[in-house]
Amino acid sequence: MAITVDTKMIALLGNPLRQSFSPRMQNEAYEAAGLDYHYFPVEVENDHLGDVINGLKYMNFVGFAVTKPNKIEVIKYLDEIDELAEKMGSCNTIVNNNGKLKGYNTDGEGFVRSLLNETDCKLEDSVFFCFGAGGAGRAICSTLAFRGAKKIYIVDKFEESSQSLVEDINTKFAPVAELVDFENVEEINKKVSSSNVVINASGIGMYPHLDEVPVSKESLNSSQICFDATYNPLKTKFLVEAESIGCKILNGIGMVINQGVIQYSLWTGLPEPIETFTKSIEKIISER
Amino acid sequence: MAITVDTKMIALLGNPLRQSFSPRMQNEAYEAAGLDYHYFPVEVENDHLGDVINGLKYMNFVGFAVTKPNKIEVIKYLDEIDELAEKMGSCNTIVNNNGKLKGYNTDGEGFVRSLLNETDCKLEDSVFFCFGAGGAGRAICSTLAFRGAKKIYIVDKFEESSQSLVEDINTKFAPVAELVDFENVEEINKKVSSSNVVINASGIGMYPHLDEVPVSKESLNSSQICFDATYNPLKTKFLVEAESIGCKILNGIGMVINQGVIQYSLWTGLPEPIETFTKSIEKIISER
Repeated sequence: MAITVDTKMIALLGNPLRQSFSPRMQNEAYEAAGLDYHYFPVEVENDHLGDVINGLKYMNFVGFAVTKPNKIEVIKYLDEIDELAEKMGSCNTIVNNNGKLKGYNTDGEGFVRSLLNETDCKLEDSVFFCFGAGGAGRAICSTLAFRGAKKIYIVDKFEESSQSLVEDINTKFAPVAELVDFENVEEINKKVSSSNVVINASGIGMYPHLDEVPVSKESLNSSQICFDATYNPLKTKFLVEAESIGCKILNGIGMVINQGVIQYSLWTGLPEPIETFTKSIEKIISER
Repeated sequence: MAITVDTKMIALLGNPLRQSFSPRMQNEAYEAAGLDYHYFPVEVENDHLGDVINGLKYMNFVGFAVTKPNKIEVIKYLDEIDELAEKMGSCNTIVNNNGKLKGYNTDGEGFVRSLLNETDCKLEDSVFFCFGAGGAGRAICSTLAFRGAKKIYIVDKFEESSQSLVEDINTKFAPVAELVDFENVEEINKKVSSSNVVINASGIGMYPHLDEVPVSKESLNSSQICFDATYNPLKTKFLVEAESIGCKILNGIGMVINQGVIQYSLWTGLPEPIETFTKSIEKIISER
């Protein structure tokens, strides 16, 4: 592989990026399709994000992927923004049309696709409980509201985060979000019990804090779908407990694959290469 | 090869760049030395040169190579410039020191190194005749003056070019340049005859105009060194005629190798990999 005048480039913007495996996943898919594309990481902080984007847009870049800490800051450098990303206030994907940049957010849609592909969940009939209102929780809940979810309970240990997310959803999308008090364990348990889908987007239970759970096993029941946004470990204690009582469980792999294939499709105009991405991520995980 | 967060990048700036083989020459040398560097072409016109440079300098670029049409324009984006490049008014190499850009010009020095390596020419004792005062002629003659050449005759079919080059050399470097009238063939022949080194930097005799020569065979003599800045063909009619009467001849290969290894050394801090570059270019030419 060498970059030539014909190579279409994609930069992953964020910092740090050393641990990201999206370059490998994306590049294996381009190679498999025989496309002369190269996706590579560009570590950049918000203070020089504008300079970098303003330079790259005049080069042979078809677009950018955007991750922490640039997903919010990047919006000010766009010429156009997709409705969902605009209302969410966060952008993880940019398409470069001859120097005109359009922003999207595929993170939450990655979750929704994974959920719809792997379960028989119907968004408009479902009540969601989301533990965690940071970047991942915001993307997931906003997209659920955008896609017509019936009800979304939101809790976070930082009440500012959960409160602002609830307000944003209710004013920008639909009045379906409800704040749950982090201090009130009884209320949390009640809301969890009455939900169809329980989401952990808080990072609780991630490596190395493997023995922590976001919600008590007692509040779960076998009719529920339980999702954990992480894939390190592949099965958090939350998912182990949920599975043991008969819940349908989902880890973050499907979300990461789906958000990535939507990006691939935005940059190439080609169908989403779910199979190639799935194979890549399986290889990456088996080597870990 | 994949670009990672550790890869040190170098952009070749200019337009068009499809035919350039410096990416291959440079990259083969980095690979041979086990360096995680990637050199690649970025086609850019002067109107967006500032945007591109201002973006790339905050990325993991150790520097840039610069070619037509950006060599003069690029100077306004530098923080610092080497004495030779500044006086020449042209820059083909930029080193990025944590966002501070310093410019150099290795084109003329590439010629001088080639000349000194392959002949016993002493600059301070030598009279040069240069046919062509465009980019290559300007770099060569300016560097010769900078390095102490005794005398330099300059002729070009565009008298503006030769006149401004003569003036620049005489005012900025040393009063060693003398304008020769393009219309006065007799004078040209006389000056050629009285020179030690005859340089063709005009492009005359390049593919596909293979049967043209810049100076008449009759004006040459066997004690002279004749140089042609091109390497397509490897031996122009000018060099064939010069060789036939016993001149020492040099084509542009040595110049291109030497200007490139000086760049390599500026970007890496390592010794100049003459052998690796020589092997690369031999391979490239044999495949042509």
